This record gives sequence, C-alpha cells and structure tokens, in this order.
Amino acid sequence: MSDRPQTPLLDTVQYPEDIRKLEKDQLPQLCEELRREVISAVSVTGGHLGAGLGVVELTVAIHYVFDTPTDRLIWDVGHQCYPHKIVTGRRDRIRTLRQGGGLSGFTKRSESEYDPFGAAHSSTSISAAVGFATANRLANRPGHAIAVIGDGAMTAGMAYEAMNNAEAAGNRLVVILNDNDMSIAPPVGSLRNSLARLVSSNKYLTPRRLAQKLARVMPRPLHRTARRVEEYARGLVTGGTLFEELGFYYVGPVDGHDVISLVEILENVRDADEGPMLVHAVTQKGKGYAPAESSADKYHGVVKFDVVSGQQDKGPTGGPPSYTAVFADALLHEAQRDDKVVAITAAMPSGTGLDKFQKAFPDRTFDVGIAEQHAVTFAAGMAAQGYRPFCAIYSTFLQRAYDQVVHDVAIQNLPVRFAMDRAGLVGADGATHAGSFDLAYLGTLPNFVVMAAADEVELTHMVHTMAMHDSGPIAVRYPRGNGRGLVMPAEPQRLEIGKGRIVREGRQVAILSLGTRLEEAEKAADQLATMGLSATIADMRFAKPIDTDLVRRLLTTHEVAVTIEEAAIGGFGAHVLTFASDEGLIDAGLKLRTLRLPDRYQDQDKPEKQYEEAGLTAKDIVETVLKALRRNDLHAEHGVLA
Amino acid sequence: MSDRPQTPLLDTVQYPEDIRKLEKDQLPQLCEELRREVISAVSVTGGHLGAGLGVVELTVAIHYVFDTPTDRLIWDVGHQCYPHKIVTGRRDRIRTLRQGGGLSGFTKRSESEYDPFGAAHSSTSISAAVGFATANRLANRPGHAIAVIGDGAMTAGMAYEAMNNAEAAGNRLVVILNDNDMSIAPPVGSLRNSLARLVSSNKYLTPRRLAQKLARVMPRPLHRTARRVEEYARGLVTGGTLFEELGFYYVGPVDGHDVISLVEILENVRDADEGPMLVHAVTQKGKGYAPAESSADKYHGVVKFDVVSGQQDKGPTGGPPSYTAVFADALLHEAQRDDKVVAITAAMPSGTGLDKFQKAFPDRTFDVGIAEQHAVTFAAGMAAQGYRPFCAIYSTFLQRAYDQVVHDVAIQNLPVRFAMDRAGLVGADGATHAGSFDLAYLGTLPNFVVMAAADEVELTHMVHTMAMHDSGPIAVRYPRGNGRGLVMPAEPQRLEIGKGRIVREGRQVAILSLGTRLEEAEKAADQLATMGLSATIADMRFAKPIDTDLVRRLLTTHEVAVTIEEAAIGGFGAHVLTFASDEGLIDAGLKLRTLRLPDRYQDQDKPEKQYEEAGLTAKDIVETVLKALRRNDLHAEHGVLA
Repeated sequence: MSDRPQTPLLDTVQYPEDIRKLEKDQLPQLCEELRREVISAVSVTGGHLGAGLGVVELTVAIHYVFDTPTDRLIWDVGHQCYPHKIVTGRRDRIRTLRQGGGLSGFTKRSESEYDPFGAAHSSTSISAAVGFATANRLANRPGHAIAVIGDGAMTAGMAYEAMNNAEAAGNRLVVILNDNDMSIAPPVGSLRNSLARLVSSNKYLTPRRLAQKLARVMPRPLHRTARRVEEYARGLVTGGTLFEELGFYYVGPVDGHDVISLVEILENVRDADEGPMLVHAVTQKGKGYAPAESSADKYHGVVKFDVVSGQQDKGPTGGPPSYTAVFADALLHEAQRDDKVVAITAAMPSGTGLDKFQKAFPDRTFDVGIAEQHAVTFAAGMAAQGYRPFCAIYSTFLQRAYDQVVHDVAIQNLPVRFAMDRAGLVGADGATHAGSFDLAYLGTLPNFVVMAAADEVELTHMVHTMAMHDSGPIAVRYPRGNGRGLVMPAEPQRLEIGKGRIVREGRQVAILSLGTRLEEAEKAADQLATMGLSATIADMRFAKPIDTDLVRRLLTTHEVAVTIEEAAIGGFGAHVLTFASDEGLIDAGLKLRTLRLPDRYQDQDKPEKQYEEAGLTAKDIVETVLKALRRNDLHAEHGVLA
Repeated sequence: MSDRPQTPLLDTVQYPEDIRKLEKDQLPQLCEELRREVISAVSVTGGHLGAGLGVVELTVAIHYVFDTPTDRLIWDVGHQCYPHKIVTGRRDRIRTLRQGGGLSGFTKRSESEYDPFGAAHSSTSISAAVGFATANRLANRPGHAIAVIGDGAMTAGMAYEAMNNAEAAGNRLVVILNDNDMSIAPPVGSLRNSLARLVSSNKYLTPRRLAQKLARVMPRPLHRTARRVEEYARGLVTGGTLFEELGFYYVGPVDGHDVISLVEILENVRDADEGPMLVHAVTQKGKGYAPAESSADKYHGVVKFDVVSGQQDKGPTGGPPSYTAVFADALLHEAQRDDKVVAITAAMPSGTGLDKFQKAFPDRTFDVGIAEQHAVTFAAGMAAQGYRPFCAIYSTFLQRAYDQVVHDVAIQNLPVRFAMDRAGLVGADGATHAGSFDLAYLGTLPNFVVMAAADEVELTHMVHTMAMHDSGPIAVRYPRGNGRGLVMPAEPQRLEIGKGRIVREGRQVAILSLGTRLEEAEKAADQLATMGLSATIADMRFAKPIDTDLVRRLLTTHEVAVTIEEAAIGGFGAHVLTFASDEGLIDAGLKLRTLRLPDRYQDQDKPEKQYEEAGLTAKDIVETVLKALRRNDLHAEHGVLA
C-alpha cells in the first residue's frame, strides 16, 4: 500500500522500559514516529484509526511515567490501543491487526502482560482498575491502576457505578478521561454539556488559585465550608464537579497532545496522595493525520486506505446491501406508515443504520448514549404508553440490558421491538463482539418472540411483523455483512407468529435452518442430491415459539433431521430437541442433530474461516447427515470427509 | 392477629379522586389512618413494612396533587407501594398481599391502572418515567410522569443513565428522591456523602436567596457565568449539584413527612416549566411505628407480627439453617484458610449472608451498592490480580450484570466465583425475583462451570470447590429457604469438575437431578418402587460441563430417563438432550424427558404450590416416567393421575 515510514527513534523502542530511557525532550519525536507507524499499519490492515491517533501522546506519557506492566494500564473499549501495542513488544505483528491468527483489534490478556484486562465493550475500565488497585492495596504490593476512558464511555451507568466505588482503590487509582468530545457519535445528554464547558474554560488558571480568590470574597458563614467551597469553585471553572461529587480529585483539563506537559502532570498525579485522581485530557480524534482530522467520524473504523490521499479501498461496489441498510429502510417504511413507530439507539446511529431514520424523523429517534439499560426500560415505558419502540442494539450489546429485557419488558409482556444486528460471528471484531448468546438468553424467557432473518427479504417481512405485533416483546436477529442480492418486495408481508416456511421439499433429509445459514443449507441439499439423498429445507424463521407442527412433521417424515443456527448451545436446536423429547418423538428413535456455534470463543478471522472453524458450512451439514445415516459409503464415494 | 384500626376518613377513600375531594388540612389525619392500616395489614401478611411507612405522606401528597392515573406514578422497587395500593382501589384485598392469588408485594400492571409500570428490581423507575413522559410529549397528550426513587437505588448506573437522558421528557418528568439514608443496607460510596450533606444543611434558606447573596460578592469576571454561579451556589448548600449536573432542576431538601408542605411544593413543581425536576424529600423508614423506627433495618421485610409489641412471629425454631446461612459459614471457612478469598455484595450484605463475613473480614468485604455491573467487573479485576473473589448476587439480580459476566469474566476466563442465592422459585416475592434463567444464560457461555447444590452439605462442598478453582469462572446456585437438616461435614470436599454422583442405584428408571429437587427425586423413586419400578438417582451437580460419562451410562442402561431442574428451558435438560443428540444416543430410541420450569411467569404463592404449578414434584416425576413407559396400567392402579 505505502512505504514504511522512517522511524529511527521508535526503532529503539521495543518495550516501555526503552521509552523510559529517553530524555523527556525526545518524546515529541517519538510520538511523531509512533503516529506515522500507526497510520502506516492501519492503512494496510484497516481497523480503528482515529481513536489511536488521538492517544499517541497519552500512550507515550503513561508508559514513560508509570511502571507498566506492574502498574496496570487499562484502555477502555480498547480500540485505541494500536500505539500501545506498538510500544509493548508487538510492533513486529502490528500489520496483522484484526487478521486471522494476528493481533486482536482490542487489548487482550493472552497477547501480552501489558494488556492486564481485555476491553472491547465500553465503560468497563474503571471497574477493572478499581479491582486491580484494590487488590494491590490489600496485598500491600506496589502498583497503580490507570484507566483511560473516553467521554462517550462516561455516559454508561457502569462507569458511574465504578466512580462511585473508587474509594476502595485508595490513591492507587488514576482515571484519565480522554475527552475528544466525540465517541462513535457525538455524546448525548447532559454529560455532554458538562464536558463542553470544560473545553471552553481557561485551562491555565490553576484551580487552587481561583479557589483562593473566591474564598477571599466569600461571606463569613461560608468559611466553615471552605473545603467544599474550594471544590465547587474549582468545578465552576473546570466543570469537574461531577467527578468531585463522585469522590475523585479532579485535575484538568490538560492538552492531551502536549506530551511534555502530560508527563509532568502524570508524575504529580502518580506521586500525589489524594485518593482516586481523575485527569481530564482533551484530545482530538485522528490527530496528526489530515484526512482523519477533517473527518474524524469517518476514520473511526476504516478499511485499507492510501496514506497520501486518505482514500479508502472501497472494494467492489454494486453488491447487495448490508443487513443494516435493509433494516434501516424497512424501519423507515414502517415509520412512514405508522407515527407510533419510534427508534432507539445506544450511541450507534450509524452502526445500526438509524442515522437514516434520524434524518427523516428526528423527533422519533432517541440516541441515549452508551446506556443500553436505560434504552430498554425507556422503550418499555414508551410501549406502555402506546408507542411502538424499536430498540436497535447489537446482539452482543443487548447483554448489557439483560435484566431490563427480563424484568421491564418480558415479565410485563410489553411490545418492545428488538433489532439485534451483528448476531452470530462478526469476523475481524472477534469474540467480544460476536452475537452468540441471544437465542439462549432470550429463548429462555416466557412471552418472548424471537426471529432470525434468513435473507434480506425475510428481514423486511420481519420488521413489518414486529411493527404489527402489539401483544408482547419481539426480537429479530440478523448478521453482520451483506444480503444475498434478492429482489426486494414492493410491500413487506406480515408473518404468522411461530410459523416457518418450506423452502424446498424433499424426502430423506430435513434441514431446519434458522437465519442466514439457509444459503449453506441449500448448498448442502444440492450436494446431498448428487448422492441420491433428497432434502427438505425449512426456514424456521422463529427460534421462539418454534413451529411445532412443522417440526413434528419434518421429524416424523424424514430419516434424518438437522437444525442449524449461528448461536451457542441452549437456543433454537435445544428448543427443537426439548419439544421432540416432550412429545416423545425421540422415543422410537430419531436421527436429529443440532449444528450450532462451538463451545469456545472464536478469535477474529475472515467470516468464511470462522464458519469453517465453527462447523456451520454446507460441508458440515452434509457430513452430519451422512454420519447420522451411517452412510460411510457415501462419505468415501463423495470424499466429503477427505 | 390484631383488631382493625379505626379509619373513618380513610374509609371514605377508595380511589385518588376521593383524596382530591378532601381539604388540604384533612390530609394529616388521612395519613395517620393510612399508616395504621398499613401496619395492621402487614402484621397479618408479612412483607415490606418500613419502606411503605416512610412514604405515607408522599403517597397522599402525590395522589392529591397529580392527576393519577393519567399522570403516571412509578414507584422504584415497588415494595413501598402498600399505602399506594390501599388508596387505589385495592384496600379490600390488602390483607392478601404476597399470598397466592392475592395482591403482589410490588406494583403490577395487571393489578391496576394506577400501576403503570411494574417495578421490583431497583432503579428502573426514572427510565420508565422518561419513557412515559416522552410518549406524552410526542403525542401531545396531557400527563406527567412521576418516579419515586430511594437514595440507595440512586447508586445504580441505570438511574444515572436515565437522569442523563431526562431531557427527552421535557417538563413532564418529576423525580422524587426519597432519601431515607437507608436502602436495604446503608448506601455506600461517594453518593452517600453527597446525600448526607443535604440532610445537614439548612433547609429553610431558599436556594435563590443564597444565590443572590453569593452573586453580590462575586468578583467581576465571574458575573458572566451567573447562571452557573447560581446553580453551583445552590449546590453548595443543598448538595443538589450532582443532579443539576445531570440536567435536573433541583428542589429540596423537603421534609417528606410534612404532607401539607409536600402538597404545596408538588403543586409548584407540577406547574413549573423548568424541564425535568428533582424533588429531594427526606423521610424516615418505618415512620410512625415505634418498633420499626427504632430498628428500621429489621422491619425492611417482616413476617407476621404483633402490632402492639412489634414482636415478629418467628415460627418454629430449631429447624435446618437456610442455604444463605450455610453459604455464609462455608465462605467464612474458606476465607479463614485463604487470605486471597474476598467477598463482594451489591447492597445485600444481610440477604446474601455476607454480613457475617463483613464482621470477620471487613477489609475483604466489598459492598458496592446497587451496582451489580461494577461488582462483577471489579471482581474480574481482582481475580486478574490474584485474588479469589466471590460475588454473592441473587440469581435474578445477576441478570443486571450479564454483559460483564460474558465480556469481562467468561471471555477472559477469569476465576470469579458466583454465589447465586434465590435460584429457582422464590415464593412470596413472585415472578420478578425468581431465579429461573441462570442455567440458560450461564450455560450457553464457553468457559463457565455451573453447579447447583442438592442440599446444604453439597453447598459446602461446592463453595470449597469454587475457592480451589482457579482456572476460570465458576458459579453455584442454591434456593431460597432452608436445607434438609443434614449433618454437616467437618471439612468440605473438593468436587471433581463435571462429575455427578449416584445417590441410589436402580435398573429401569434414571432420574438425573440437578439441585434441590433431589428430595423430590427420592420421593419419586420410593413411589416408583411401590409400582415395581426400580430407579437410579443421580445428583448431577454440574449443569455445565455436564457429566457426559454418567449421562451416557444412565441413558443407555435404563428404560427411561428424566432430568429435573428448577430453571427455565435452555439449561441443564437442554444440555443433556443436546449431548444425547450429538452422540447419536437418541438414534435408536431414547425415552428421555426434561422437567423444568414452565414457559410462563409464576405469580407469588407458597413454595409447595409453586412447585405443584410448575410440575416439579415427585408426583410429576412419577407421572412423566409412567407416561414415557406407556404404563397406563400402573397409572390407573396407583391412581397417580387421579
């Protein structure tokens, strides 16, 4: 893609101890080279660029001042960790980022002792840091814990819970608020205002000087509350009051790209004895790379790009639309028809496709920040008041709101609609972002309707079905990636709840497919046909309630049946087996197999490799069928096991 | 128990509209009578007493001022709703509270239009209220939404997320902070200090007066920030800064037992046009009932009691200890042996039994407040730093931290120990507190070990096994209620992971029991023996990984096999079925049935009734076996189906 940059100083750095050998005035050059190396690497691999560029100076300063890995450094969300990886012994593999067998795009414990805590979901870092710091305090061991957390991540309740419990960590906890005023989308709600105030304030007026000024003019009765006056006075100019209220000693705002100042401030903070400290650093996402600076949002996550022009490699165009785009269009269609349809996202308007909805219906779109718990119960309240809320939350992030799904939605049987994007395997994002568990964790809940779209046309039908379904909660799952390129219907159909559809009629083999593995089921049926085995394929559509009539018929009229789903144990296949057992269908002998995700976390890789590893391909279906039928002759003859 | 109190004014009130017909100066008497009625009712039914007594005046004032049910009133946690139920058409059933077929101990949508949102888990009310208010605003309909939330509930991140998103509700949202400085246990963390400040402040100095005073003495440069000065100045005396930071207009603190003042303030708030308002009311839990006032904690949840003496009906003494107590003792034993064992609770030191641990090891006990998310990731941090954390969280509340369990613990394979009390059905607490889903939601996760204790001796072994298990996450579930009265072992055993035990050897029937339904399995085996059917009973111990050797042997050497667990679909039975299918054990015919909780939410009732309703009794096991064996002759002969 591009020539490697010249990095003479960075070339002397393998580990943080090498940074600590440098003179302070060499650090700006190191930052410059590190920045160029990050740009070069991501231009080859794709990945998160803007976030890493924003924390180059923070990365260098933290490793210069703190004794990592004894001091525990935790990067919230972790996608800003590329510079960190480069200076912690992983530079030689940095161009394998997010590739199969390569470095993870997030921090990962198994990769390095410099990654004490894996983080890929937002807002976990302070809790983990409190844990590390508290452990060190209890054990009377040396070691700070440093959490670097973005302003967007601060909108999550979890961060607040952690700050409210920071006292346990004593003075071993340092939280660095990386305030770029821009998480994935602009942060929302009141916290934003509080943070915006900071940036606009005079950062060179030190807090204590102002406090003293104020104290001099205070009326006598307030002298008694001097400490509080000082605290609030500082808050008045810095905006740090919220953090002071939560028990932190607030320092800032500081220029997060002035590495010398950062080092000096962090040295003070390291040596202070004031209890938990919060350093507020103002940074710019994409800093130092013009195309990213001028379009920080665009460079949040990138594909391969040309370093000079900033042009991203768009790949082949004109392919089928993504499931995300299909969902977005389908929801827009429903909203045009029905003014009670509203959309809720947790800081992912673009990732969920709701940015389009937001443009068309700004009043009916609610971006609540990284606050999935609130999103779900807020939706429940709106549903109870007669609206038709769609919560568009990735499968993996809906885990953040599981109790709200159970307690506020399912038990009350409220018609909240859940659009679970990124269900199943997610390629380069790896295990932390896989949506593997929704069929088990939602399927176990009474009252819930759970669908999986087999293709983009089905997704359109299902969105319509959800909009029309007022009798209780309903969810649809669909994967990352693009549809099959089918012709879209003029009008969506309303599906009958709990009813599947026959895609192909056969005799010996029944394939009960849930979701987009349908395409593999069709390939498998073709392969089986070449072996003289005729297969029925059902797109089951519903993981709950399952289509019991169809299941009964398929299981009792075929020699072998296979379920397939892109989800872990306990979901659709388990429900089919449970039904077959309840009904006694297994009593007389039943060749029924369930294909599902394996019982392990799968690392990032190309999707097709992940499916192979998971055993969810056409080949796996065929093998499962032949093995169940004990047709080793066909195995050998067609070489499917070869 | 006790004579009904005289309540002439309350007798005229069936619905809030009747309260609104009263003169303001009649309200104190109404409160007095309502208080007596609550005490009288709870003395008969048992239940939550202190919380309800604390909000008698709030209940009357809110219904007097607001136009319920058009205005939506949401009680956080809901256990303080008994006075509310009495004045909203349910007085005639108030002595059926928490009984089978009676009123729920929480708010419940299906009970009354005056309960617009069921709440039983903490900290959901503001989110729901934002939903109601936003819906009204969008639809241009009249109606406020009022959330009444305790100071303890404010420690949950969810409340913070909701406050940060309150703007969406416009000026239709009123949050009433019911500050009794005492949730279930004293609230913890920094928020507590913030609240304590309030109570100590001069509540008659109005905010604006002070703001003006302050403004007069401010140096010139600060004049520009007048609005902020006023906000912070108010915060200085009232402590409301945290809420102001989050976008609320703060009013308070006010005396929550002065019903006349409350009415006047709420009238102002109702008519104000300042955006979301927060009214800070200071109340006393147990107010007006001396035994409760002097011991508010003790009267949080009570059994039947004598109104005059306050003496609670202890019932028969000398019975077996509760599972909670057995867990507490077992953990204490481990902690004495191993100084790396630490305990974490989310505001439930007494409910989980950790109060005992706290006394013995105050430095190794962490009560994080109602902050399950933080609890789990904090534990993960401690585990990563070499400690052996036990998170003691009820099964139903662990749902609040599901993503942390997945992302921070399971994916990283960190040895956090989960003690899940109240697993399964929970009697009088009803559906919202049932721990029905843990086997599905944990069982689906790679790396997890999930155990269920069959009795108190087993629980002791399992706690020891958890302490010794450093290779990954491990959980144990155990029910509400008491053990079997078994002799406790001098030293606990370390169990082999993934291995069950045979409790009784038989021939035709295999009962695979997980958890405390073992007792019913034994009874069932006895009954089957009278029919000439010999049963093997296995206590499977592990829901994950299941004992595949034992399962294979039991399924292949018996005519019929039945699994039983106190959990919803997708858990242990589903894993056994999946294994039997994977292995092809079902191919040649297998009479295997799974008994589990039904696919519906069960209301409160006596435990034995709930088990009957769930179909998890000895009788159900016998019937399932006979039906599977098609032994209708035995059915008829022994009348088990009669």
